[in-house]
Amino acid sequence: MISVGIVGGTGYTGAELLRILVSHPGVSLHAVTSRSEAGRPVADLYPNLASREDLVFVEPDPAGLKQCECVFFAAPNGTAMHMVPELMEAGVRVVDMAADFRIKDVATWEYWYKQTHACPGLLQSAVYGLTELNREQIRTARLVANPGCYPTAVILGVLPLLEQGLPEHAQVIADAKSGVSGAGRSPNVPALFSEAGENFRAYNVSAHRHWPEIKQELQGITSTSVNLTFTPHLTPMVRGIFATLYVSGVDRTLDLHSTYQQRFARENFVEVLGEGALPETKHVRGSNYCRLSVQRPYDGEIVVVLSVIDNLVKGAAGQAVQNMNIMFGLDESLGLLQSGLFP
Amino acid sequence: MISVGIVGGTGYTGAELLRILVSHPGVSLHAVTSRSEAGRPVADLYPNLASREDLVFVEPDPAGLKQCECVFFAAPNGTAMHMVPELMEAGVRVVDMAADFRIKDVATWEYWYKQTHACPGLLQSAVYGLTELNREQIRTARLVANPGCYPTAVILGVLPLLEQGLPEHAQVIADAKSGVSGAGRSPNVPALFSEAGENFRAYNVSAHRHWPEIKQELQGITSTSVNLTFTPHLTPMVRGIFATLYVSGVDRTLDLHSTYQQRFARENFVEVLGEGALPETKHVRGSNYCRLSVQRPYDGEIVVVLSVIDNLVKGAAGQAVQNMNIMFGLDESLGLLQSGLFP
Amino acid sequence: MISVGIVGGTGYTGAELLRILVSHPGVSLHAVTSRSEAGRPVADLYPNLASREDLVFVEPDPAGLKQCECVFFAAPNGTAMHMVPELMEAGVRVVDMAADFRIKDVATWEYWYKQTHACPGLLQSAVYGLTELNREQIRTARLVANPGCYPTAVILGVLPLLEQGLPEHAQVIADAKSGVSGAGRSPNVPALFSEAGENFRAYNVSAHRHWPEIKQELQGITSTSVNLTFTPHLTPMVRGIFATLYVSGVDRTLDLHSTYQQRFARENFVEVLGEGALPETKHVRGSNYCRLSVQRPYDGEIVVVLSVIDNLVKGAAGQAVQNMNIMFGLDESLGLLQSGLFP
Amino acid sequence: MISVGIVGGTGYTGAELLRILVSHPGVSLHAVTSRSEAGRPVADLYPNLASREDLVFVEPDPAGLKQCECVFFAAPNGTAMHMVPELMEAGVRVVDMAADFRIKDVATWEYWYKQTHACPGLLQSAVYGLTELNREQIRTARLVANPGCYPTAVILGVLPLLEQGLPEHAQVIADAKSGVSGAGRSPNVPALFSEAGENFRAYNVSAHRHWPEIKQELQGITSTSVNLTFTPHLTPMVRGIFATLYVSGVDRTLDLHSTYQQRFARENFVEVLGEGALPETKHVRGSNYCRLSVQRPYDGEIVVVLSVIDNLVKGAAGQAVQNMNIMFGLDESLGLLQSGLFP
Repeated sequence: MISVGIVGGTGYTGAELLRILVSHPGVSLHAVTSRSEAGRPVADLYPNLASREDLVFVEPDPAGLKQCECVFFAAPNGTAMHMVPELMEAGVRVVDMAADFRIKDVATWEYWYKQTHACPGLLQSAVYGLTELNREQIRTARLVANPGCYPTAVILGVLPLLEQGLPEHAQVIADAKSGVSGAGRSPNVPALFSEAGENFRAYNVSAHRHWPEIKQELQGITSTSVNLTFTPHLTPMVRGIFATLYVSGVDRTLDLHSTYQQRFARENFVEVLGEGALPETKHVRGSNYCRLSVQRPYDGEIVVVLSVIDNLVKGAAGQAVQNMNIMFGLDESLGLLQSGLFP
Repeated sequence: MISVGIVGGTGYTGAELLRILVSHPGVSLHAVTSRSEAGRPVADLYPNLASREDLVFVEPDPAGLKQCECVFFAAPNGTAMHMVPELMEAGVRVVDMAADFRIKDVATWEYWYKQTHACPGLLQSAVYGLTELNREQIRTARLVANPGCYPTAVILGVLPLLEQGLPEHAQVIADAKSGVSGAGRSPNVPALFSEAGENFRAYNVSAHRHWPEIKQELQGITSTSVNLTFTPHLTPMVRGIFATLYVSGVDRTLDLHSTYQQRFARENFVEVLGEGALPETKHVRGSNYCRLSVQRPYDGEIVVVLSVIDNLVKGAAGQAVQNMNIMFGLDESLGLLQSGLFP
Repeated sequence: MISVGIVGGTGYTGAELLRILVSHPGVSLHAVTSRSEAGRPVADLYPNLASREDLVFVEPDPAGLKQCECVFFAAPNGTAMHMVPELMEAGVRVVDMAADFRIKDVATWEYWYKQTHACPGLLQSAVYGLTELNREQIRTARLVANPGCYPTAVILGVLPLLEQGLPEHAQVIADAKSGVSGAGRSPNVPALFSEAGENFRAYNVSAHRHWPEIKQELQGITSTSVNLTFTPHLTPMVRGIFATLYVSGVDRTLDLHSTYQQRFARENFVEVLGEGALPETKHVRGSNYCRLSVQRPYDGEIVVVLSVIDNLVKGAAGQAVQNMNIMFGLDESLGLLQSGLFP
Repeated sequence: MISVGIVGGTGYTGAELLRILVSHPGVSLHAVTSRSEAGRPVADLYPNLASREDLVFVEPDPAGLKQCECVFFAAPNGTAMHMVPELMEAGVRVVDMAADFRIKDVATWEYWYKQTHACPGLLQSAVYGLTELNREQIRTARLVANPGCYPTAVILGVLPLLEQGLPEHAQVIADAKSGVSGAGRSPNVPALFSEAGENFRAYNVSAHRHWPEIKQELQGITSTSVNLTFTPHLTPMVRGIFATLYVSGVDRTLDLHSTYQQRFARENFVEVLGEGALPETKHVRGSNYCRLSVQRPYDGEIVVVLSVIDNLVKGAAGQAVQNMNIMFGLDESLGLLQSGLFP
């Protein structure tokens, strides 16, 4: 049993991590911390976890966390970087579900996250935890930077095309739609039911923090320069990301469908749909799967890839557990095979 | 043209009042006040009002408001009572859409609203603005207390039964369901899309401020004592109230359907459905109508009345305009005959 | 491993049964039948079950089903009664999730279901599968009539009050709200997104088939006559039932909260909330729990009980599996402890 | 008063047309036809039209329709072409809200609509009713082909860029999201609340009938060849279309914002948002407005235009009335200035 700690368990990604871990057969929950809710039973805040009435939020005490083998950070950006060095020194392995260690270049990180990085020395050794891309490095990683939700859907969607090689200056356009849970649990007007319900809108069209993250990873996969356009939207549902990806310059002789099938044939959680089938977010709601389809509509210049995930599972807590499983030598899918909830 | 002022135009009821008044042929908008948004075009905050780009929020200045013939308060509870006396002295007629003047008994009001009333002397002369109940008094009223959304749906629903007379200690149970816009525009966790969406819950079961308001009015209609149980619920839609009303002790010889039809035959905005038909909130979304059905299921002891309104229209801004029309001698339905939005 | 068959696996309750059984450690799925989808992989129709790509729908062949130890019927009303006698003769134990065996009186059944019963001789021996009421009989039952979704929420909600005894002619009013999945997967206009979304309505107010079912069971619990009013509503969410229950005549000296706590203290799947707490459907979405609160608002005549379940789990497939666990001597909660999905 | 007939008034676009026309001051409704609902009051099917209890569906009788000055077809594709020649001969002017006259090339039309065209001779003289593109021709048109909902949002969105000229082989990618009402009122599984709710999906990615329509019109605006990719999606709301448009090859020296502002400066129903502002579908719900923003994110190669409309208003019935106003010399915005419904 891996002794696990969670820092910041009160947000939606923390709650989802708990949902997965309470039924994970290889994990023992050592500490779930929350400064604001310390002393309160977890099932009081999240009654869906009623079967684990014993769990109680505790203060985020480094001494307690150091006794864990693995600590997950489900806290806001800029939290983990202040605690991770001390935990790592104590031998704890860390999965940060926030953005502190996702960007390799410290200046870029500081520009986008508008703060000084507390431990830039860790950025290079942190492994970007997109499992299907970096599985081998994750095995031995001490610190995993769990990807953002949009980057997970987008990078998985274009990965096979980039690995096959794109011409210089190819365009990658990621039109991404997220459920409202992606906006977190902090109250704000645009996330109110009366505003987000029966509404569809784009946001941060000119600058979203997932843009440099996606760009960095795409650039890492291919040696040619990639032009990335990324447009995030909010759609009136709670969970799910749907990314519609438009890629120009793809070799017309490439068999798209079989390229995708081969790339992901051995993957546990990536399903390439049969030709003609199209993915829906509801099919992965509550599950760790990414479902993909690829096509060249109207035999045109543009290849269209559709990629769906649950933003809270494969886009956050599920992938974090998938990475933990790998880090500790467990079966990668342990605790993650619950079927999604449909309808 | 009636010169109109609105105090507190930034909430949902204020926005709805504006939506109705900008196309009302008998009204000239003199001032729309908002302390927080002063100087900002109304259509910037509420782009659905784009056809009226000239409207700009102004500071709530008594001098300006005194030039109006009619001032609506769409502000939080406890706001109007501090401004109304001065406005009334200047000859302005007032419709308060909040609760400051709904309860006749000052001690009861202060108990439920947890503050000292600033002008208790006005409580007796204020007219409770349920149009179908108090039309004649509204004509000459200087101050109208516009009813709460739940009270409107509930009282209209049981009015004919109470007017026919109920035995002592009859039970009236009001099981009421509201769309989330009833919770207002202030951000709070339970009103977030991720919390209120795909969720149904009750709230304030043991104490809701509309209980004394409904109780007072029911008691005013009938001379016997009424036992009122009122359970408010939140349903995952933006607009609408559905009240399911259970009344015991109704005379079995009463022809329910014709009693209701006769009572509301001359009403512009209350429709009694044909026997067997049932109302739906969507049929009144965006309109000022109340739709009712009455039945005695399984020929049992309990009469069941179903009553639907749009909480922001007949339950707030629409009824307020209906009252203004009456106060100023206009056709009661002027500016209020827009069809609801379906689907 | 119990060898299990499912008849009619293509509707929502069948899909939900599959979702639960594919991760149930004590069950081996022998046959999932569907006349319309025979030959098609289950994961093709329900991609949320992607981890079980081996499952394929087969024709509903009695020979194959007879090899099962337990057969679930997730088929429309009137299906099971034609197949159950033959299966039972072959020693198969049956859980019918439809209504064929819920009503003891054949004339009543035929009146409400508008058809002749094919095996009225089985009605008396069929056990009504409300686990918390009939656990001991379920252990040895050959045929379990799994309760309807509304009856489950309603009966659990008033059970402790009825067991304590009510005066003659006490009123039980069940105001129940269901998610749209309760209407099934057959296409019909009122269940369209554009009709049911942003809408709240009642239906079958004067006659719903769950009325005689609830009435029969309430009458079985208490020796006094119960007056039941039952109003079903449709609320714009996919899953969940919220029952608001109004009971008159409850002994004022009864400690409501402790009565409920004691009654359900040993139950796995019924949670009585702390005083002041109120249940929400979202807290049980995807889980087998029923959550209850009980109160006497305004210290009035009426006791109000709030009861929530997921209509597809505790209201259908989950309770069916709970019953199967009991019938076959397994731990009652085996395979049923997955946390609900929140948010 | 223009004497108006409506053929096929029972679908959502017919109902919306009625909603607009019943409060249009320049129109007299002569006949609303429906084969299936003949004899039924319109307000019985669409209770939101309760203020017009006099309207009754009649059989689609050509004799009656010939007495109209203007006939709208809100019927399925392939209906109007069988009735239009006879009506036009009788001097009736026609607005077809279906697709019968949108495509100029008969072979293309027959390929996409899978039937033989009944009156190909009318295709050339029919005017494509995108008001902002063809206003002058609409004035004198005898037959207007009202645009599809997606084409309206897409073409308005890229119109100024195409009019400025694009290089040969520029890419136009239209990622479009529609509310579920676009799927119509005929019951089908994917449009059920339980399927479309809490779900996001694409459909007809490889072939959608609006592709040739958009392509034809874009090609008509610019002399260079346009590569069009069009991906329609379904988003869980009732009304609204959000089109995210990606255009390559736009001249970098072009001032995007002022180009758009100038192009639409005199338009009644197209609003170009201020720089930095982004449109939301909810802002146009129930109104005839199109709201647009244009930007070049990250100073990249791709210009991104966001375009929102209500699919049933500017995307169907509203634009149809706008065209009728022009055809009959009325103020273009007559009867169309109702504010949208927010929230």
